[in-house]
Amino acid sequence: MKQLLKHCDILTLEQGGWRTWKNAYLGVDGDTICYLSETAPLERYDEEKNLSGKLVLPGLINCHCHSPMVFLRGLGSDLNLQDWLFQYIFPTEAKWTDAGVRAASELSLLEMIACGITSFSDMYYHCDEIVGAAIEAGIKLNVCRSTQGRPDLPFAENTDCKEGVALFDRWDGAANGRIKVDLCIHAEYTNTPDTMRAYAAVCKEKGTRLHLHLSETRSEQEACIQKYGMTPAFLMDSLGVFDNPVLAAHCVWVTDEDIELMKARGVSPVHCPSSNMKIGSGFAPVQKMLDRGLNVTLGTDGAASNNNLNMFEELHLAAIIHNGYLNDPTVMKPADLLKMATVNGAKAQGRGDTGELRVGKKADLIAIDFDKPHLIPALDYPAMLAYAVQDSDVCLNMVDGRILYENGEYKTLDAEKIKATARTALEALY
Amino acid sequence: MKQLLKHCDILTLEQGGWRTWKNAYLGVDGDTICYLSETAPLERYDEEKNLSGKLVLPGLINCHCHSPMVFLRGLGSDLNLQDWLFQYIFPTEAKWTDAGVRAASELSLLEMIACGITSFSDMYYHCDEIVGAAIEAGIKLNVCRSTQGRPDLPFAENTDCKEGVALFDRWDGAANGRIKVDLCIHAEYTNTPDTMRAYAAVCKEKGTRLHLHLSETRSEQEACIQKYGMTPAFLMDSLGVFDNPVLAAHCVWVTDEDIELMKARGVSPVHCPSSNMKIGSGFAPVQKMLDRGLNVTLGTDGAASNNNLNMFEELHLAAIIHNGYLNDPTVMKPADLLKMATVNGAKAQGRGDTGELRVGKKADLIAIDFDKPHLIPALDYPAMLAYAVQDSDVCLNMVDGRILYENGEYKTLDAEKIKATARTALEALY
Repeated sequence: MKQLLKHCDILTLEQGGWRTWKNAYLGVDGDTICYLSETAPLERYDEEKNLSGKLVLPGLINCHCHSPMVFLRGLGSDLNLQDWLFQYIFPTEAKWTDAGVRAASELSLLEMIACGITSFSDMYYHCDEIVGAAIEAGIKLNVCRSTQGRPDLPFAENTDCKEGVALFDRWDGAANGRIKVDLCIHAEYTNTPDTMRAYAAVCKEKGTRLHLHLSETRSEQEACIQKYGMTPAFLMDSLGVFDNPVLAAHCVWVTDEDIELMKARGVSPVHCPSSNMKIGSGFAPVQKMLDRGLNVTLGTDGAASNNNLNMFEELHLAAIIHNGYLNDPTVMKPADLLKMATVNGAKAQGRGDTGELRVGKKADLIAIDFDKPHLIPALDYPAMLAYAVQDSDVCLNMVDGRILYENGEYKTLDAEKIKATARTALEALY
Repeated sequence: MKQLLKHCDILTLEQGGWRTWKNAYLGVDGDTICYLSETAPLERYDEEKNLSGKLVLPGLINCHCHSPMVFLRGLGSDLNLQDWLFQYIFPTEAKWTDAGVRAASELSLLEMIACGITSFSDMYYHCDEIVGAAIEAGIKLNVCRSTQGRPDLPFAENTDCKEGVALFDRWDGAANGRIKVDLCIHAEYTNTPDTMRAYAAVCKEKGTRLHLHLSETRSEQEACIQKYGMTPAFLMDSLGVFDNPVLAAHCVWVTDEDIELMKARGVSPVHCPSSNMKIGSGFAPVQKMLDRGLNVTLGTDGAASNNNLNMFEELHLAAIIHNGYLNDPTVMKPADLLKMATVNGAKAQGRGDTGELRVGKKADLIAIDFDKPHLIPALDYPAMLAYAVQDSDVCLNMVDGRILYENGEYKTLDAEKIKATARTALEALY
């Protein structure tokens, strides 16, 4: 089927900068963009959609999430980290069932799709359920089984790792490539050098990516230096971890030397500002990482530490908190932020065929309704997206040419049924 | 007319803490709350509204705004403060006409009403237009004429001050008290000791409040100490300014001694986190001010430095940025934040008859629709309001018993006409 989006403004990347096409046309053939111009196409399309007053841009890519944790949203707010984790989060997670994770995943997808996310990187347990929910929804997913080392077990007997590899063998490339499976090292502090070295080797053998937490808190950074005489980044590199493409969540406490190492080894940091602020981790040196040319991406983290999965909130926070912290309004430019949320995320997910709007790329896109009081005037689209646009301004979410969401309605998911199932499942959890 | 809101959860204040009434009833007689219970009333109401699944709470009070600056939204983003002000903001403001300010005010009211604001404190020029727009909309407004001293003129000839006093005489108490007029000292650095002393005396004579900017930037704080040998707070106090009730916007760089002084003199600080972050001012010591028992309030500032007027964004930012800055997840409790956005704001505006839901108080309230994927589960209402609720979740805005907004529709304003007028006026501005 061929679809035409017409009379919309469109944001594309040209030589690294954002260009706005005015009152333009975007054609989609199957799952791929086939036309993009300010001139109407001559050929006929099966379906045409008038998007006058709307801005079309690449779909947002959430590079770090634990999506089923939406069921833990708001649980034990405002405690110190240890009390929160050990008295609230872990005991609740211990009650998870496959059905519970499926219900939570579906709820999380309602939220992510409505706020313009077309692809996300997820780290959790019961991953078959997450994959099933994502395939049904039509969203893109890089999933990994959260993997913590067991120093008391030989590598081959470690259930986490075996499940992670089996997940890769079972699902990688499924649903026309919409599902990708990454491997995982949960974090330096939940693994041993042996398990990290072994995971790194398996990842290299499978030819996939590693998703991990890196230098999230000051205590993690300091404990690693005390234990190993080096930072988590240098430790991981010494174990072969960075021989793979790596998605490194948080990177709050990375040193200048860590940044140079990550640049040299092609590690993609994921900035998670809501989570870093809410649980008091601190300010990641994002402008410094951008200045050094790292492929910085953006993520929501899980809803337990956020408390939602709203990428426009992350864009907004990333745009302003560093100005406040550095007392400098000139840092964190909207144009860079928008790349973090789109094309950089696609690169980090190993999806070179998406993340920007261009003929030949996948039709993964969203539209923003600018006919809202809080979006008038719209003098500068990237600035508006970074500072003013809300999740509820998203009026279209399309993945691989398929509309998942339009004007408040879900096209692939039954929202009322999912909310009802979630409420029933939550009664069992609390 | 008597109206009954039924089957809603309701947040009230009991002995300083928030209490949730479940599946409850709130009756309104004219402009006043006449009933609040989990038991249905026996008497008949003229109109009944089923708000099942909704949370009813006091309307939000935006204590610092320059509402017409919505027309400058996104203008000259990411510049240093001087270039931004002198190359973009001031030259654009110089083009203002009464009609332009009226159009901008009306646009700002669409935005504020939709995000649950029932009262706001505004500082600007062409104030008759702002008052006119607010009266038409039915929102509550504490307005003041921005006043900058002219050291070359005797006090009686200072146009700013004369206009401010005339505004008070013309409008204070209008529209059943929905309009209040404050006096203004724009800031220490835009006035002289003589003009500040004179404004303070006029304010005392009129028996109203003063709205001012205080210690917003480090350079302002340091320059004042260099010039006068004391901080802006101590300077103002020495001139009699704090003999009046004072709404002090920003307070980013106030010292511990300033905080003690403000406590002793009953000054209400207005925290404006978006603006403080975006233009790089820094982190106001809000938890410290709360700990000392100051009546801390919340505000959006103008849209030029925000870029919207969304109080839920301010709540959210205030809830998390200080955790990040202080590396402490336990600071800035949702219960305190919610008071900042409601009852504290009412006190600072001199509106003892609103800011909380209680029989005998004015019916100034909003409802939040919790049947949204991103609000499930709702384990803790204040935490959900601080961390997860979005502006678009507001489904009812009532002021003095009159519905201004319900389920996306404005009841007192013609949104399409206002947006069209705004677009025409903006063409003349840019």
